[in-house]
Amino acid sequence: MIRWFDDLTLGMRFRSGTQRITREDIKQFAFHLDEAAAEHTPLRGLAASGWHTAAIAMRLAVESRPFGPHPLFGLGVDELRWLAPVRPDDTIYIEGEVVELTPSRTKPQGVVRIKWTAYNQRGEAVYTFTPIGIVPRRPA
Amino acid sequence: MIRWFDDLTLGMRFRSGTQRITREDIKQFAFHLDEAAAEHTPLRGLAASGWHTAAIAMRLAVESRPFGPHPLFGLGVDELRWLAPVRPDDTIYIEGEVVELTPSRTKPQGVVRIKWTAYNQRGEAVYTFTPIGIVPRRPA
Repeated sequence: MIRWFDDLTLGMRFRSGTQRITREDIKQFAFHLDEAAAEHTPLRGLAASGWHTAAIAMRLAVESRPFGPHPLFGLGVDELRWLAPVRPDDTIYIEGEVVELTPSRTKPQGVVRIKWTAYNQRGEAVYTFTPIGIVPRRPA
Repeated sequence: MIRWFDDLTLGMRFRSGTQRITREDIKQFAFHLDEAAAEHTPLRGLAASGWHTAAIAMRLAVESRPFGPHPLFGLGVDELRWLAPVRPDDTIYIEGEVVELTPSRTKPQGVVRIKWTAYNQRGEAVYTFTPIGIVPRRPA
């Protein structure tokens, strides 16, 4: 059970549950982006499905709770890379690996980067991203 | 009028139109993420509004057409950073600056990074991100 910065080790790995993406999901998400961007902006070549994948992958990462009760990201996200398209009825899951652990010199916490990779049902990597979290140190 | 890699210069700047975010937008987006993540996943502490901001900012960037007819991103996005919350009825716009121009040695194209910053109606920076685009070189 991971709860503190001190519970994490470099190379530690996580794995999420799976998420099936339906044709309806993809259409709804694209439609919503279209609406949110206001009436004067028809949907253009924006890779909406890329942001859809990003949102689903972040949700799967949050659900994996690699930091126990602490939030998964606090500073931002680095290196979003879309590697292959996500098609209707694909099912994705993500795996994460701790790639940076930097204890703060001044506060009882540390910075943690986990590189997550999303795979489809054929095991093909479709997307990666690296959120940057701040995790408290174990109280003395 | 920008059309080719060769039309871009380091430090070149762009500015988008504005986008007002309503309370309804924010609720709809959160709700949709909730649905898309399937029935077994109640909406937790995920910063859905952060991804909402990311989606709107990307749309505004796409509309700014810094590469003319060419797509804004092809390789990925770096350094997403949420700097301040976006509240209902905030209006945001984005400004972009070319921060990298790397011609390919083997293909008639180049890699371009634009760092975009989203501001609210008080001029406060709320979000930055840096998409990585591939832009063709001007034909000889």
